[in-house]
Amino acid sequence: MATATATGTRLDLYRQIAQQLRRDSIRCSTAAGSGHPTSSLSAADVLAVLLAGHLRYDWSKPKDLANDHLIFSKGHASPLVYAVFRAAGVIDDKELVTFRKSGSRLQGHPTPVLPWVDVATGSLGQGMPIAIGMALAAKRLWHAPFHVWTLLGDSETAEGSVWEGFDLGGFEGLNNVTPIIDVNRLGQRGPTELQWDTDAYAARIEAFGWDVLEIDGHELAEIDDALSKARDASRPTAIVARTIKGKGVSFVEDKEGWHGKALSADEAKKALAELGGDIPSESFPTSKPDPWSPPAAAAKTPQLKTYTDPVATRKAYGDALAAVVAARGDVVALDAEVSNSTHSEEVKKVAPERFFEMYIAEQKMVASAVGMQVIGLRPFASTFAAFFTRAYDFIRMAAISQANIRLSGSHAGVSIGEDGPSQMALEDLAMMRAVHGSTVLYPCDGNQTAKLVAAMADRDGIVYLRTTRANTPVIYSASESFPIGGSKVVRSSADDKVTIVTAGITVHEAIKAADALAKENVKVRVIDAYSVKPIDAKTLAAAVGATGGRLVVVEDHWPEGGLGEAVLSALAGAKLSLRHLAVIDMPASGKPAELLHAAGIDADCIANAVKGLL
Amino acid sequence: MATATATGTRLDLYRQIAQQLRRDSIRCSTAAGSGHPTSSLSAADVLAVLLAGHLRYDWSKPKDLANDHLIFSKGHASPLVYAVFRAAGVIDDKELVTFRKSGSRLQGHPTPVLPWVDVATGSLGQGMPIAIGMALAAKRLWHAPFHVWTLLGDSETAEGSVWEGFDLGGFEGLNNVTPIIDVNRLGQRGPTELQWDTDAYAARIEAFGWDVLEIDGHELAEIDDALSKARDASRPTAIVARTIKGKGVSFVEDKEGWHGKALSADEAKKALAELGGDIPSESFPTSKPDPWSPPAAAAKTPQLKTYTDPVATRKAYGDALAAVVAARGDVVALDAEVSNSTHSEEVKKVAPERFFEMYIAEQKMVASAVGMQVIGLRPFASTFAAFFTRAYDFIRMAAISQANIRLSGSHAGVSIGEDGPSQMALEDLAMMRAVHGSTVLYPCDGNQTAKLVAAMADRDGIVYLRTTRANTPVIYSASESFPIGGSKVVRSSADDKVTIVTAGITVHEAIKAADALAKENVKVRVIDAYSVKPIDAKTLAAAVGATGGRLVVVEDHWPEGGLGEAVLSALAGAKLSLRHLAVIDMPASGKPAELLHAAGIDADCIANAVKGLL
Repeated sequence: MATATATGTRLDLYRQIAQQLRRDSIRCSTAAGSGHPTSSLSAADVLAVLLAGHLRYDWSKPKDLANDHLIFSKGHASPLVYAVFRAAGVIDDKELVTFRKSGSRLQGHPTPVLPWVDVATGSLGQGMPIAIGMALAAKRLWHAPFHVWTLLGDSETAEGSVWEGFDLGGFEGLNNVTPIIDVNRLGQRGPTELQWDTDAYAARIEAFGWDVLEIDGHELAEIDDALSKARDASRPTAIVARTIKGKGVSFVEDKEGWHGKALSADEAKKALAELGGDIPSESFPTSKPDPWSPPAAAAKTPQLKTYTDPVATRKAYGDALAAVVAARGDVVALDAEVSNSTHSEEVKKVAPERFFEMYIAEQKMVASAVGMQVIGLRPFASTFAAFFTRAYDFIRMAAISQANIRLSGSHAGVSIGEDGPSQMALEDLAMMRAVHGSTVLYPCDGNQTAKLVAAMADRDGIVYLRTTRANTPVIYSASESFPIGGSKVVRSSADDKVTIVTAGITVHEAIKAADALAKENVKVRVIDAYSVKPIDAKTLAAAVGATGGRLVVVEDHWPEGGLGEAVLSALAGAKLSLRHLAVIDMPASGKPAELLHAAGIDADCIANAVKGLL
Repeated sequence: MATATATGTRLDLYRQIAQQLRRDSIRCSTAAGSGHPTSSLSAADVLAVLLAGHLRYDWSKPKDLANDHLIFSKGHASPLVYAVFRAAGVIDDKELVTFRKSGSRLQGHPTPVLPWVDVATGSLGQGMPIAIGMALAAKRLWHAPFHVWTLLGDSETAEGSVWEGFDLGGFEGLNNVTPIIDVNRLGQRGPTELQWDTDAYAARIEAFGWDVLEIDGHELAEIDDALSKARDASRPTAIVARTIKGKGVSFVEDKEGWHGKALSADEAKKALAELGGDIPSESFPTSKPDPWSPPAAAAKTPQLKTYTDPVATRKAYGDALAAVVAARGDVVALDAEVSNSTHSEEVKKVAPERFFEMYIAEQKMVASAVGMQVIGLRPFASTFAAFFTRAYDFIRMAAISQANIRLSGSHAGVSIGEDGPSQMALEDLAMMRAVHGSTVLYPCDGNQTAKLVAAMADRDGIVYLRTTRANTPVIYSASESFPIGGSKVVRSSADDKVTIVTAGITVHEAIKAADALAKENVKVRVIDAYSVKPIDAKTLAAAVGATGGRLVVVEDHWPEGGLGEAVLSALAGAKLSLRHLAVIDMPASGKPAELLHAAGIDADCIANAVKGLL
């Protein structure tokens, strides 16, 4: 046990660090002329104690899997993030004041451009479920010794995704993650809903299955004690810290109108005087983790199923994912309570511990996938394609996080039939194309799906696979290859008059149309653009060139942002006689064939469109 | 007080209705060969009691604002919805068995194609916050006598949006809305997280500021009592009903593997035998509301501010919205805790009661807007454009709900500068274009913004306005008009060599480029495509025709799904020499001008692109 003197010394050290964190938060934001110093000051004491007393992190090896993780869910407190990095000695004073400037790694909100930042934050309510997902995999798969810490703002607890995170952590009994809520009472434009009612926060969190430590977030000994207890707890434990926004600088403390506002040079001078003077910053010793690494993961070539009879691409997805999981120890699966529909349940048969049930909470699912890839796993997350719209902000942010995640959306388009429009993804291609660096795949048969799923495991970035509910014919042999960025010419001849470009379910309609037209002596080229992004511009251009610019694009999707516009962008201004067949009117329920016809995207409609071009 | 006999008679009636609801739920789903009968059976007793004993609804006047509202958040229980309509006598047996068939109003999940359905449900977790938003406006603006009832599934409480709804209802003290959770223990692919732990549900809901009535959802007297208490409560009150999935049909009760599965004809026969026999359905008397209507709302022409000095379009949005609110009593504003940034706070100055603070919860905000428009209000909801991605599922569903809502997203694009990519909407145009029937507007100056905001108030469907953080020059006089679907030719001459199409912030860059090029004797046409959807295809085609097909499209957005692809779609295969300037690389922080240049979308880059085409 520490002696009184040692304790005193420790608290002195914490105090010294906390004041430096405050000074540096002000210095960098004042230099930038913008930023969130007051949101940084409220959490400075908590972070000082965490950094010097509890975080086990080798700052020279940010990728070391033994390290603890520290996720700033309240990403706008970036001055504090960078002040912590300064105190840890990994950035210097000169870099600190490049905050928010062009070319600096110290962006307005933290991103993994800095090696010590796991994920981008700044869209509130995200860091928390990301931390939870990371902790879940670490505990279940490895009983990993590292601890996950995440700092939340009080305002962001209004986001439902925070409660999805608490739900998951409570349900899974995660004692290796500590959310710390910085209850500084003030949001951007005024008081928060609960202000300083920390009991109300505690009651909510406890109701989701957690123990809660309520503390004064400026009492260093209380913080120290709470962080120790949280790390050692046998049950999920959160910390609710009552704090003062702007703490330490009298003229901004607990004042409205100071959110997201830098102090002027004069104000900063006064502030620094209150914070011990404009003294140079130091680097402080921190604790490293004990050496540890997860068990080596198997890495074999997946033994993919092959198909000859009609099969739904969603089923082929499940089969292929199970094969990938069986072959590779780093691949994990997540599903939002529809694994018997997406067929990701196949994974449970080969590696039940690597199947993560996320219940009906798509934000939590994508967040967890992002958290899991931080610690070296390769997640595949699945639900109905329509319901990935629920997680679009998380997908957008995952791209900024440089995350490598794979998403599979089933039941796409009107072809699902009876369930009606709420279950029909008709915007998913647009949504997923408009994600930085994304890959968008849309297979039409079982063998193609299997190959693409195997390729997804190796593909970086946000990789999306769109699958179909109904069984579809198998048109490709199991030996064919389907490179990402490629396409397949499934019908062609020297005297083709029109090119049809399509993907997924409507490939089969296009083939039917082509075969029917052939009987009338109208030859058409059919291209299966299974790689919607990147798209095979070369093959498209060649086909369009060979068919006099006559082009029909068919898609089970709204007209905007999907395959049709991807093709137009790829052709970059080529002269076309164009028919774009897409879903124009709001669909209803009906049989798949009826709905494909009603939407004008079945074989008959395609054949008519072709004839209209001749 | 009712006599014992009267009570007995009432309970008998409830029982009779409940069994009919069960029979009809089975009949219609078996006829369809799909659907969710077991999820309907668990809630049949609650709905029978609600329909016959508590709901005040004139079934012949579904648009009567005096009516109660009943929102099936668990939309997959559509057989029960339609069975209720049958019991109310508004659909007949013949229509009931058209369930899920092509051309039927009885879709797989309920939509407002039926006049008694307020909003489409089927994406779980949405009906609840929609109901809360509706109740909030009804109570605050009118002390309306109607009550809002919403039936939730237990599985959907995993969605954070449900807790956003509870948070809002608790915080606002709403005693005019009753969420009823049908705790039937089983989700789609197995047990829910909390199974029958109704105390855990109650603890969570209570922690969010509600009273909770825990009941047996099959005890008619308990249900009756709880519904009475909930309607009369002075505090927010929810009902947690323990139920049995498939209740009433022995061989499906509390069984896994029966979610979303119709009974076969033989099974249905057995089920009907258990439910009192295959007897004809009846219509039952229900209670009408007392006559009531909200006070007549002012409807004047808004007095819009006019601008000559540079102003941010977000500021012009706030000014115009305040003018619209002042002029029209049916317009309301919602904001997700950033009203001092979106400038919707201007509304508070003219009609504070019609400004609804949604805190940082964008799903709840859009849901509430949808709820408010059901009762005749015309909502405008605002946040940073980037954060509407959080609510995309709600926006998608709002289109299926035939909702009329207006969304304003500020701080779009790299031009925001220092805050970095998490705050930059670069996918919002793609996302919003790919919404059925949507309108997408992107003004570049204050006067244009004002006119568009006024037009938005009258525009139906999902109407999106993208605004800019920085002040921009005023280039249009206050007397100009900006019809939706139009565009402005801001630079043109008879010998233009290239057309530049752009909108918003980059209009000013294009003008600078055009003026610089003019000095070098290169004439270009500049089109301000402020109406991104619908787009002014005619003006675009004429310009491109007049400039030899030479076209530069410039946008502060990813290349996919935004203005560039909208223009390509509008030009429908015209031969082009095209340069599409959009944001390709992940942006960082910096000054707006630096970031516009780095992204290749500033005046210099535009001028270079023009030269590259000559």
